[in-house]
Amino acid sequence: MTFTKMLAAAWKKNDSLLCVGLDPDPAKFPEHLKCRDDAIFGFCADIVDATADLVCSFKPQIAYFAAHRAEDQLEALIAHIHQNHPGMPVILDAKRGDIGSTAEQYAIEAFERYKADAVTVNPYMGRDSVNPYLAYADKGVILLCRTSNPGGSDLQFLDVGGEKLYERVARLAANEWNSNGQISLVVGATFPAEIARVRQIVGDVPLLVPGIGAQGGDIEATVKAGCTANGGGLMINSSRAILYAGKDERFTVAARRVAQETRDAINLYR
Amino acid sequence: MTFTKMLAAAWKKNDSLLCVGLDPDPAKFPEHLKCRDDAIFGFCADIVDATADLVCSFKPQIAYFAAHRAEDQLEALIAHIHQNHPGMPVILDAKRGDIGSTAEQYAIEAFERYKADAVTVNPYMGRDSVNPYLAYADKGVILLCRTSNPGGSDLQFLDVGGEKLYERVARLAANEWNSNGQISLVVGATFPAEIARVRQIVGDVPLLVPGIGAQGGDIEATVKAGCTANGGGLMINSSRAILYAGKDERFTVAARRVAQETRDAINLYR
Repeated sequence: MTFTKMLAAAWKKNDSLLCVGLDPDPAKFPEHLKCRDDAIFGFCADIVDATADLVCSFKPQIAYFAAHRAEDQLEALIAHIHQNHPGMPVILDAKRGDIGSTAEQYAIEAFERYKADAVTVNPYMGRDSVNPYLAYADKGVILLCRTSNPGGSDLQFLDVGGEKLYERVARLAANEWNSNGQISLVVGATFPAEIARVRQIVGDVPLLVPGIGAQGGDIEATVKAGCTANGGGLMINSSRAILYAGKDERFTVAARRVAQETRDAINLYR
Repeated sequence: MTFTKMLAAAWKKNDSLLCVGLDPDPAKFPEHLKCRDDAIFGFCADIVDATADLVCSFKPQIAYFAAHRAEDQLEALIAHIHQNHPGMPVILDAKRGDIGSTAEQYAIEAFERYKADAVTVNPYMGRDSVNPYLAYADKGVILLCRTSNPGGSDLQFLDVGGEKLYERVARLAANEWNSNGQISLVVGATFPAEIARVRQIVGDVPLLVPGIGAQGGDIEATVKAGCTANGGGLMINSSRAILYAGKDERFTVAARRVAQETRDAINLYR
């Protein structure tokens, strides 16, 4: 099944626009996990199993695995999700970007090695740097557009011929690069006016929205700005607020509670 | 020693502006290597040992290792360079780009895990996405500016208030973000007029120039556009033309010959 169809099915089945970001920081793990050789896998798999009926996708961030030489645990985690929660989309947050021949290698990494259903990609190098990911017709390609960090404005908010650079990226991605309907865009929750602007430009293209919770983005403003007419269209990411809601052996209970509260808070405004 | 000083020393010691890009593609390896479990390491280490006195830096491209689950061989390769060719700068070509808390993890990956002397970084997310790499005061941070691929123009050549986006990136990077002198820029050899423009903007900031050889960039035009007044300032990258110059057991001889010819061709115009 394509990423787009998996996502639509998960929105419906779990009545949820919530994406749980898997950014594992061993220093924040509960004590009982710290002695495990595969603590990163164990922590993330426990979070996944505790929240899988409340979310529309999981998004492991590869930097947190690579910094700890834990690529094997990332492989095991994605295999665990596919096996135990069939149909649940997995987004590999890698923000890759390189020329075509090298991008082909990154696409192999994301889709063949890790078996992700979608990958985040940086658009700075232009269309031919995106094509190697699009060549996997059933996979999703999620392009950075308007990122949630303060420095996001340094380039993305520059005026390029009467529109902002992020608007140009949205237009190019949705209207010129998206012939097979595989593209989604990243737009930060810290900029709800820009979520609304991107939604206006791209029609029903899905938006991955980081930045609620720890980064300060507002749920009501995000949902009202970003939902499509049928109440879908969003993957609203929360990472730290869910992962580290609890600090002891019952951390999955705390994580589930926060995930449920977040899903329900989102649904209030759909 | 800082990356900048290592680079200046290598320019001088080897009388060379040539950077050899290590993009190992096992399908192109000589037959006698293909049976080795660590063929990727073996191939790259042989290339390194055959050319180390002719170059100013080596640039392993991480995608080629990640696609083959060969992170351990990348670690071993960089350790091999540091041990056998002390003082030779190693650039990890990874083109990472993410918000601060995640960029910290990528910086750990590049500098603490792989022990690279410099890393390539994508500027699309702005200054705070670059700072975590700059926090390693002795390391180099090489920002994408004007990339060598055709799609490089999709965003980088847009007009932003009287200058092109790549010129703005060059100005921001060299004048506002470079307080500690750690920054270099990527400018493709396929655009010599833009190399000259970047050189004009950034003074003596080093430029990493991919795109000669297989991608069609011209050596004379590159050197004349990019050299600083003292005949330095460039890391001119060649990958495939050197790595795959020979196809049999004597591949290192062929690689050395092409590396020497390329270094000498560059030196003709300095």
